[in-house]
Amino acid sequence: MKITMSAALALGIAFPACSALADEGMWTFDNPPSKALREKFGFEPTKEWLDKVRLASVRFMDGGSGSFVSPDGLMITNHHVGLQCIQNVSTKENDYVKTGFSAASRDKEAACPGYEVNVLSSFEDVTAKVQAALKPDMTDKVAREARKAAIAGIEKECNAASGQRCDVVTLYQGGEYQLYRYKKYTDVRLVFAPEQEIAFFGGDPDNFTYPRHDVDICLVRAYENGQPAKPAAWLPWSKTGVAEGDLVFVSGHPGSTSRMDTVSELANARDHMLPLSLEILKRRIAMLKAFSAKAPENERRARAQVFGLENALKANEGRLEAIQDAKAFAKKAEGEAALRAKVAADPKLAPSVGPAWDTIAAAQQKAALRLNESFLVSFGGSRQLAIAGQIVRYVAEVKKPNAERLEEYADAGLDSLRNRLFSPAPVYDDMEEATLTLQLELALEKLGAGHPYVKVVLDGKSPAEAARSALAATKLKDPTVRQALIEGGSAAVDASTDSLIVLARKIDPLARAIRKLNEDEVDAPTKRAGEKIAVARFQVYGKTVSPDATFTLRLSYGTVKAFPSDGTIVAPFTTFYGLYDRSISHGGKDPWALPARWQAKKGSLDLATPLNFASTNDIIGGNSGSPVINRAGEFVGIVFDSNIQGLAWDYFFTDEKARCVSVDARGIVEALRNVFGADALVKELTAR
Amino acid sequence: MKITMSAALALGIAFPACSALADEGMWTFDNPPSKALREKFGFEPTKEWLDKVRLASVRFMDGGSGSFVSPDGLMITNHHVGLQCIQNVSTKENDYVKTGFSAASRDKEAACPGYEVNVLSSFEDVTAKVQAALKPDMTDKVAREARKAAIAGIEKECNAASGQRCDVVTLYQGGEYQLYRYKKYTDVRLVFAPEQEIAFFGGDPDNFTYPRHDVDICLVRAYENGQPAKPAAWLPWSKTGVAEGDLVFVSGHPGSTSRMDTVSELANARDHMLPLSLEILKRRIAMLKAFSAKAPENERRARAQVFGLENALKANEGRLEAIQDAKAFAKKAEGEAALRAKVAADPKLAPSVGPAWDTIAAAQQKAALRLNESFLVSFGGSRQLAIAGQIVRYVAEVKKPNAERLEEYADAGLDSLRNRLFSPAPVYDDMEEATLTLQLELALEKLGAGHPYVKVVLDGKSPAEAARSALAATKLKDPTVRQALIEGGSAAVDASTDSLIVLARKIDPLARAIRKLNEDEVDAPTKRAGEKIAVARFQVYGKTVSPDATFTLRLSYGTVKAFPSDGTIVAPFTTFYGLYDRSISHGGKDPWALPARWQAKKGSLDLATPLNFASTNDIIGGNSGSPVINRAGEFVGIVFDSNIQGLAWDYFFTDEKARCVSVDARGIVEALRNVFGADALVKELTAR
Repeated sequence: MKITMSAALALGIAFPACSALADEGMWTFDNPPSKALREKFGFEPTKEWLDKVRLASVRFMDGGSGSFVSPDGLMITNHHVGLQCIQNVSTKENDYVKTGFSAASRDKEAACPGYEVNVLSSFEDVTAKVQAALKPDMTDKVAREARKAAIAGIEKECNAASGQRCDVVTLYQGGEYQLYRYKKYTDVRLVFAPEQEIAFFGGDPDNFTYPRHDVDICLVRAYENGQPAKPAAWLPWSKTGVAEGDLVFVSGHPGSTSRMDTVSELANARDHMLPLSLEILKRRIAMLKAFSAKAPENERRARAQVFGLENALKANEGRLEAIQDAKAFAKKAEGEAALRAKVAADPKLAPSVGPAWDTIAAAQQKAALRLNESFLVSFGGSRQLAIAGQIVRYVAEVKKPNAERLEEYADAGLDSLRNRLFSPAPVYDDMEEATLTLQLELALEKLGAGHPYVKVVLDGKSPAEAARSALAATKLKDPTVRQALIEGGSAAVDASTDSLIVLARKIDPLARAIRKLNEDEVDAPTKRAGEKIAVARFQVYGKTVSPDATFTLRLSYGTVKAFPSDGTIVAPFTTFYGLYDRSISHGGKDPWALPARWQAKKGSLDLATPLNFASTNDIIGGNSGSPVINRAGEFVGIVFDSNIQGLAWDYFFTDEKARCVSVDARGIVEALRNVFGADALVKELTAR
Repeated sequence: MKITMSAALALGIAFPACSALADEGMWTFDNPPSKALREKFGFEPTKEWLDKVRLASVRFMDGGSGSFVSPDGLMITNHHVGLQCIQNVSTKENDYVKTGFSAASRDKEAACPGYEVNVLSSFEDVTAKVQAALKPDMTDKVAREARKAAIAGIEKECNAASGQRCDVVTLYQGGEYQLYRYKKYTDVRLVFAPEQEIAFFGGDPDNFTYPRHDVDICLVRAYENGQPAKPAAWLPWSKTGVAEGDLVFVSGHPGSTSRMDTVSELANARDHMLPLSLEILKRRIAMLKAFSAKAPENERRARAQVFGLENALKANEGRLEAIQDAKAFAKKAEGEAALRAKVAADPKLAPSVGPAWDTIAAAQQKAALRLNESFLVSFGGSRQLAIAGQIVRYVAEVKKPNAERLEEYADAGLDSLRNRLFSPAPVYDDMEEATLTLQLELALEKLGAGHPYVKVVLDGKSPAEAARSALAATKLKDPTVRQALIEGGSAAVDASTDSLIVLARKIDPLARAIRKLNEDEVDAPTKRAGEKIAVARFQVYGKTVSPDATFTLRLSYGTVKAFPSDGTIVAPFTTFYGLYDRSISHGGKDPWALPARWQAKKGSLDLATPLNFASTNDIIGGNSGSPVINRAGEFVGIVFDSNIQGLAWDYFFTDEKARCVSVDARGIVEALRNVFGADALVKELTAR
């Protein structure tokens, strides 16, 4: 090895930082890390292996991953991915979030309103097609429109031809474009969920940490034409599970990473974006907790939102901490300086790419100046106001040619959007009022009484009065009202006197204006300059690094591995022994309380069964629910988190201490069988 | 509270950093923190409470603490305090370190050679007497000799009058002197020890960390005149144990802290002392591990030394990390600057105290220049060479007037010294050779072949040859040979041709010279200037802060408390559930393997029993084995460690994350009864 390295250095061959040692990478299925796998693990995934894993992997459009684990359309994902469904299926009388849910038979499986599940059925490189639409002499703005038009055209054509969901995915900041075709399932039904107390055991304190003891699973089933779906592939349940040091794969949908961002973008996140985001999250959580404290029913209603916000808070705090690490930041800056030097030294790259970093830095400065408006001038603060905003925009946008629309109203996504818009998920009046009041208070405080948005939303009233009156006269709680407005088009929406539709009509031009300024002055130049950098990086490093995450299917590999922490070594596994230890050692108090069933059934469990495990797989938010797969292509666990050190992965990969955290397949079966008595389910999962 | 603070600030009253909030302090029994306890906990220790706790607390002269826990002289301490005894009682056939030891009856309790236990029977302020010997016009050197003479005189007089061990203890860097009278037990016998695997479960990785799962206990009994001793006081075993938030006390013998050290002393530790110490420790550990790898019997022989060195290594690494924390260091510097400013502003203090900090800084620079010699020019590297050195010095020193001797040969300590010198603890030839070889290698490397010490010890040979020949012709393994030399005095020692005595005679003048230079140029000026600063600090703060640790009896208070770590909350207790989880989750591999007895008896244990707990008591090395005591004066646990954050306590107290770590009294009884079947012992411990 020493000779290889020295020779390589002498020849001036550049090594992407860390990639030679660490298991970095969220790899697209067209470019699996076969060489690294062969060299490091003597394993090379075959086409059959890759196809099976891809076709068994599913994406939950609300932001999670999962997999098929039976030929009858049974899917496993995380409890927190299924939570919205569990909550919607619940009533005041039957709080399945609290008690858990187990369908007694298939006909008792309960519909999950608004859920959409995608399977990546095929993909195609369309880089040349997209780039053909761009000419070197175009302004940023024209280039952006041209790209958008090209993408919308490709998607539309594909959708018409295949009847499938078609997305053109931007990889390597525009270095590559891929057309992804998805098989779509919209009839998704709840099969099984444990109590949230055990799914989220340890609550917010243990969230983003390890050791963990969570049964963070939820089983749902895809249906087609009223019958259990027959997926193209599914993952057999491993009989043996994993051991320390084992090679494991994660196949899932990482949402977004910022690893190719420039230093000025990271500095903007560190100095402006993240601090403001943290402040707003804290205020929202405090408000919802005050709301929850008033009644147990309030607490039940606010739970999913509080959960999501606390998750976001801790994640952003961890990210801010990672990025505030002066040493890591300096390393990032070094990497950028190295690439800039290579570009500057290359006469073919220097003229076009050289200024790109300064262009982005200037754009980031503009973004910082408009930050409060970017966060607050919106349809935020109320679920119904968000729906009103979507209705107002929907009817306006669909009249335009596909290529000219706001991207979320392009034809490719309209089915999914309507599915969400017409969801009968419940709306709680008092919670709506509390959340909207806070939104208006924040706007008044951050933007000032004289800001056009504040004038429009308050209309001379106090935030609380304005929120109350805006919500008093809306009928949007009723999905049929929403549907009627969408079907009535612009005429119906323009004529509507629904208080929230009226408000949304007033907010729309203001929010569009801010969005347009950001798109023109921040996003477009950043994106275009980023593309130039990406192209240059391509020329230097090729596809030896994987692209930033884009909530599309990726494969990452790693090993089950202990890690050092606070002077000792954290074991790669936890067991049910550890679950009971952690509950008792905290005096059994919330959030380490155990559901009654878990106390009663303790004697039936083999406490030595592995419950959770840690591995070095490269993941990020969106990977929640991803299957962990062994060499044989079997299901050995399900990703549900990273440890706190893993939050750094947004900006750079490290496997010194950062770990992916999963529920062990053996622990799942042990719990299903001996705590829940879900024998039929165990039989379905473990059949071959 | 707000008014109190504002008023105090307005009046310019200084608060010692943190002391108003944190449970800082290793308090002497003449100055218990009664005010803080009353105000914070509504508890005031009575004279009876304090006397009982003091008289039940014991000091192990080899460097640990313990307590009487029965009226029949039964004492509990840590396994690692009793380890030398357990090892000495062991043979090749019966390795009690491995198997544990349990005396079947009292007459089977096994003598611990060389052990000495002290109880602080009374104390007396002798500050005026000591300071009367010092005149302002004395040079540093003369002042040091005068102080030494005064102290030796007081100790001798006390010893003659009481027959007890008498030590004059320097507190507050010389701000105060206390005469401590100790009742002494030298007939100490081993009663019970668990397997080292469970006492030190988690080994070096878990050492200095928390959560922990160690049964780090050893029971020994004091005998007098061949009968179990009847101590003046003993601690009854708590029936209920402690709960989170409970006020608890630690009564023990913290060895040394550096909290009153000046910034230049800390900088010297950070930049010179600790880095060199770490290097030498690492080399010694590597050497002993190589030695151990050769045979299981080697491993058994080296175990206690490796254990001690690894402990020291991790501790010093933690300390270096604490002191390398720029923020903490700056805070320390601020505190010093504040005191210097007060001194400078006070015309009575400024002339004498003002220059003290610069004096110490200059002395520290000299220490740094001589660091290698200070570490290496010694009788180090071999147990027998150390004994030879002590014999050579003993016969020379006892001829001098008490006041003029090297302090460890003052009359007060001679009994204890002889007790250690004549100990029949085994000596292993091959290990002696390995450790001495490394010592000579280090000397050659750090001091150079031309250094007088190197010339003397190598005498033209290689380190390995020199070590072999030095050890080849010594008879010092035999305690009667040592005794004959001591009894023969200078004549016998001067005439001895024992190879190690010959070598020690050559090393002695060189080691004395370095020691004298350090005493005159570093210790004396640092001590005298430190005294001046201490006196000034006394004038500013009084005894509202406790003195640095001096391996004398101290009382600290705190609460049983969780702490934040890596994004979550570490529970204050662990349980036997956690023990089995940690072993299984590490695959049962060393150092998390469980002894066979612990696997067999798992079903008999109530796994929910608390095993270890964390509290905010201020402790440091030397506190090992200290009893943890509740308000009722009952034994609730035994200190055996701190977490890694607690290593900062050498330099400053913080209770944000730092914790004292103890074995829970409930876990001890559960293990004694249900794993070891030691029913008689349980009966003795829990009788009232």
